[in-house]
Amino acid sequence: MLVVMQSHATEEQVRAVCERIESLGYRAHPMPGAGRTAIGITGNSGAIETGSLDSMPGVVECIAVSKPYKLVSRDLKPENTVVRIPTPAGEVTFGGKAVGMVAGPCAIETREQAFTIAEAVRASGARLFRGGAYKPRTSPYSFQGMGEEGLKILAEVRDKFGLGVITEAIDNESLDLVEKYADVIQIGARNMQNFSLLKRAGRARKPVLLKRGMSATLDELLMAAEYIMSEGNYNVILCERGVRTFTDHTRNTLDLSVVPAVQRLSHLPIVVDPSHGTGRRNKVLPLSRAAVAVGADGILVEVHHDPARALSDGPQSILPEEFSQLMREARDIAAVLGRTLN
Amino acid sequence: MLVVMQSHATEEQVRAVCERIESLGYRAHPMPGAGRTAIGITGNSGAIETGSLDSMPGVVECIAVSKPYKLVSRDLKPENTVVRIPTPAGEVTFGGKAVGMVAGPCAIETREQAFTIAEAVRASGARLFRGGAYKPRTSPYSFQGMGEEGLKILAEVRDKFGLGVITEAIDNESLDLVEKYADVIQIGARNMQNFSLLKRAGRARKPVLLKRGMSATLDELLMAAEYIMSEGNYNVILCERGVRTFTDHTRNTLDLSVVPAVQRLSHLPIVVDPSHGTGRRNKVLPLSRAAVAVGADGILVEVHHDPARALSDGPQSILPEEFSQLMREARDIAAVLGRTLN
Amino acid sequence: MLVVMQSHATEEQVRAVCERIESLGYRAHPMPGAGRTAIGITGNSGAIETGSLDSMPGVVECIAVSKPYKLVSRDLKPENTVVRIPTPAGEVTFGGKAVGMVAGPCAIETREQAFTIAEAVRASGARLFRGGAYKPRTSPYSFQGMGEEGLKILAEVRDKFGLGVITEAIDNESLDLVEKYADVIQIGARNMQNFSLLKRAGRARKPVLLKRGMSATLDELLMAAEYIMSEGNYNVILCERGVRTFTDHTRNTLDLSVVPAVQRLSHLPIVVDPSHGTGRRNKVLPLSRAAVAVGADGILVEVHHDPARALSDGPQSILPEEFSQLMREARDIAAVLGRTLN
Amino acid sequence: MLVVMQSHATEEQVRAVCERIESLGYRAHPMPGAGRTAIGITGNSGAIETGSLDSMPGVVECIAVSKPYKLVSRDLKPENTVVRIPTPAGEVTFGGKAVGMVAGPCAIETREQAFTIAEAVRASGARLFRGGAYKPRTSPYSFQGMGEEGLKILAEVRDKFGLGVITEAIDNESLDLVEKYADVIQIGARNMQNFSLLKRAGRARKPVLLKRGMSATLDELLMAAEYIMSEGNYNVILCERGVRTFTDHTRNTLDLSVVPAVQRLSHLPIVVDPSHGTGRRNKVLPLSRAAVAVGADGILVEVHHDPARALSDGPQSILPEEFSQLMREARDIAAVLGRTLN
Repeated sequence: MLVVMQSHATEEQVRAVCERIESLGYRAHPMPGAGRTAIGITGNSGAIETGSLDSMPGVVECIAVSKPYKLVSRDLKPENTVVRIPTPAGEVTFGGKAVGMVAGPCAIETREQAFTIAEAVRASGARLFRGGAYKPRTSPYSFQGMGEEGLKILAEVRDKFGLGVITEAIDNESLDLVEKYADVIQIGARNMQNFSLLKRAGRARKPVLLKRGMSATLDELLMAAEYIMSEGNYNVILCERGVRTFTDHTRNTLDLSVVPAVQRLSHLPIVVDPSHGTGRRNKVLPLSRAAVAVGADGILVEVHHDPARALSDGPQSILPEEFSQLMREARDIAAVLGRTLN
Repeated sequence: MLVVMQSHATEEQVRAVCERIESLGYRAHPMPGAGRTAIGITGNSGAIETGSLDSMPGVVECIAVSKPYKLVSRDLKPENTVVRIPTPAGEVTFGGKAVGMVAGPCAIETREQAFTIAEAVRASGARLFRGGAYKPRTSPYSFQGMGEEGLKILAEVRDKFGLGVITEAIDNESLDLVEKYADVIQIGARNMQNFSLLKRAGRARKPVLLKRGMSATLDELLMAAEYIMSEGNYNVILCERGVRTFTDHTRNTLDLSVVPAVQRLSHLPIVVDPSHGTGRRNKVLPLSRAAVAVGADGILVEVHHDPARALSDGPQSILPEEFSQLMREARDIAAVLGRTLN
Repeated sequence: MLVVMQSHATEEQVRAVCERIESLGYRAHPMPGAGRTAIGITGNSGAIETGSLDSMPGVVECIAVSKPYKLVSRDLKPENTVVRIPTPAGEVTFGGKAVGMVAGPCAIETREQAFTIAEAVRASGARLFRGGAYKPRTSPYSFQGMGEEGLKILAEVRDKFGLGVITEAIDNESLDLVEKYADVIQIGARNMQNFSLLKRAGRARKPVLLKRGMSATLDELLMAAEYIMSEGNYNVILCERGVRTFTDHTRNTLDLSVVPAVQRLSHLPIVVDPSHGTGRRNKVLPLSRAAVAVGADGILVEVHHDPARALSDGPQSILPEEFSQLMREARDIAAVLGRTLN
Repeated sequence: MLVVMQSHATEEQVRAVCERIESLGYRAHPMPGAGRTAIGITGNSGAIETGSLDSMPGVVECIAVSKPYKLVSRDLKPENTVVRIPTPAGEVTFGGKAVGMVAGPCAIETREQAFTIAEAVRASGARLFRGGAYKPRTSPYSFQGMGEEGLKILAEVRDKFGLGVITEAIDNESLDLVEKYADVIQIGARNMQNFSLLKRAGRARKPVLLKRGMSATLDELLMAAEYIMSEGNYNVILCERGVRTFTDHTRNTLDLSVVPAVQRLSHLPIVVDPSHGTGRRNKVLPLSRAAVAVGADGILVEVHHDPARALSDGPQSILPEEFSQLMREARDIAAVLGRTLN
């Protein structure tokens, strides 16, 4: 259920409607837009009696939302959500005119490794650094990440190189720490339907980057974002990272069509990760270009100065000089779409 | 790495090898078999110097295990693992001669609902009852389960009807409670690669039923079991519940070939869930028969006395009288394979 | 559009309705059933004016068929179609009480090879022999089959061992020859949507075994059968032979749920090919048992006395003694379902 | 097997090697490149004795080709194959610097429809026109195309608007006619493994556009091209048109990563069809941009001036003004890659 307010409705009127909704036992989600404010209602299991809302001052109409998702829906909020990440090197946005560029190693391995790569990607113009401190690995005997030590190195990267930091949380405990150290909390593909973790992320006060599960439909991806938003965190960035199909020439099949599909249905920004999406170094640049061309709001790539010795995902990491070329090509293609990089 | 002991090796010799392994900084996993004991070594990131083990009393050989899984592997333990579930109505086993039958509603909804169904499935001969107290649902607005209240009802079902109880845990907190109330801890398909939860299950003292993820390969399924076993819990039952493919005549595609595939590679029992595997009531009986015929070690089915009003998964629940027919047919087909039901 | 006749309608009345349909520029397909006759109408691109048919003697009603398939539909013909294959060793049926067993090598390689295998499978009780003379191979440099020489050997197999013969046609030219030499014309998975070949098969006077395409939905499989039937050949046997998915432990994923799904929607018989469906010798027996248990109307298996030297598909062929065991197990499981083997 | 000639080898030396190969019972395929000529050998079922070839004048070396494909391989011919299509409006190339643009309706419906669309796409700068005269349709009751009448209209389109013409052949008979009337012969996705048709196309003297099958791996696509080339037709253009996966937000999943994957392994050009690849009008422009950005050698799109009334595939056809925008955007993105449009 969605309550649409008049464009000239006062803050008081919006507040009054929210209070009425809460008094009915539901939860109100005011979503201010450029034109007008809409108020989402959640917590109802079935139909809601709207008679009492319809007639309140400032209300235009009450719309029954038939789709399973509400808060993520563009019906609720026609304007793009712009997620803003403040970094020492300036604000990075996802969902606005600029395409957000994120680069870094798959995993933080040592301070030296992190610094070397951070310096290189900053020099190429990136302002967001990615790197895992907690690694969900298929094998219990593989390197599982440095844990809080890794997070501390990431914090040093921010201080030293001016880069904002994105890193993954894999359970409630690590999420507490990631929220403390990082600028953006990443939820990985394997946890896209770990609803307990999604709810915890929804109570965090940092933006969340939510990766599409390996065999998640578009609806399931949006519903996972709905879990986060339903707890009150509206700063969600979706991420396509390849899906599992019968093909064998890439590790996953990068589904770029999901970008315009998300943009039709949802106001949330969507970025693309061509590193995991292909699993092959020589495919990262072509698919990064394609992701910008299809209209993605950002690109996440793995960069490593010595991929052969990377403790994880070496075969899909590009070299710093390749990232530099990627930045140039992405900038030129973004310009064709009337966009910039940041 | 695997240390194979002589068939007449003493317990002392086994203990001595384990201590040596631990003193090297690794973890030892003694696996007693009918013939001889093997000791798995985990915790090593690369090759292990085995010189010191090879020459110890009672040791036959040290085998480098090239497959990514170790503890789940039939190379490590040639005999089937038989998981034993004591119930008031008698022991149920998975992995032995008998095929274990598990039935019950998708979710515990009320005491009356649980009792009605429990009485029916007990009358048909089942000794294990399934029913969710914590439900991972695609939508945050769908019924999420009764939580601990549901677990208490399950405990009453055990007392009143003599049934053992299987129910799902979705995070560390619910796992603590499930371990307390239930006989078997279920890890659902969406959490098959929630490695944090797998490790917690590995420290539980109840058997674990691990469902295959929606797009998990056989190797990934076995590696998820390896996570549990590597923490010390060797009572793992695998479960095929359908995978995601392009087909649209069933909700998932039940991959029965995984049953003989698992049985070749692993000593762990594997059961089949034709309810989730097809998502269609009219497919449950045919596919249950097929699951027994292919050699599954057990069957999990959803039974509901009033599927139209079920709070979740009604369309795939069968009626008590259909379950009764299923028991008869399963028993007759099991007999063709020289097996019984339990 | 479907015209349902009264159960006591005379042959003359049926003929009169057919003539009226043809005079309207459509094509009439009388389908005699155990109870009553129904007449399918094809050739219409949109709605048909039925006023003139409704009122004819012997007509019960005219039903608009909304599904894309008509002639294959159980709505049109509620009783099972029983396809009858006369063989020197007695009639084999598909779609009746008996489960039809078909065995033989992937490809006819030499007279000696064919005779050796034919003798073995006949001794185990099979009455239908399969073997390819035209092989659709992924590589142009692989053995492409013996062509008409192979067909002649198959004819000798029929004469010498009393076996009926099923073999594949890959284009119009080979179909002419297959129709001449064989008892059943096989259309392979790769040609399931070779509509030109389907139409030619629809004009043949021998039954057609139609294999499901590697990524065909149920609707597409039924529509392919509709192509054959719309040309007048109503003796179509459908065949599940595995679909392509992300899994890697078998060559294809055998989708046994399609068997009850077909049986709900269509009156046509459906058989299962566990050899191509798994691509692994050690999976053929378990999945054959499962296919009988799920309710398949027949089983097709590849048998070879020397699989290591087979010119094609050796790894999925079972040995004659394994086929003998398969016959015993299939017979016992069929009995549980109240069926026999033939 | 591949015989690599010296860069200064004479035509006589090449011819002599070819004659020796043929005299051994194999088939020789001389492939002249910018640098030097290589000669592929086909027709051998196993290893070839190369002693006699190694020592012939002009021969550098004989390379055993372990991959299943030979003639399509970049090992055989390192330089791109440039397929040249002469049109009245100038030569169009695939595989060179220019990106080839192809547009037109899914099916030829009437002369007026074809002329209207041809005029529009020509005005936007396209020089190749696509349109089906033979339509492989899932249902036998759907519009199957105009047949030779449609081909005649296509010939008129060439004369009147100066456009080259691409159209599909579905069997040997239609291929004879398509070869006569069209400039490029299209083999559709459903016929990608119709090996009989591929061989016939290999004997045609017009270029062939080969579409990837709905669930074809990269190797299978290349092997299908190998079938065509092994019969002597080296002018093959590959086409990605979406593969079948679990996703439901598009009709197929466009696998753009196959473009760089093909370009690594093969010298053949590869184009992309975003219309079939997505099945949704609103996805065609974004994915066309992405296809150019990923490095495709051409784009095929469906254009219709009145999609709501199109006899087939209306929902995926774009309007003439959208095609005009697509041409502009494609040109600008091609420029970023140092390419032009043609």
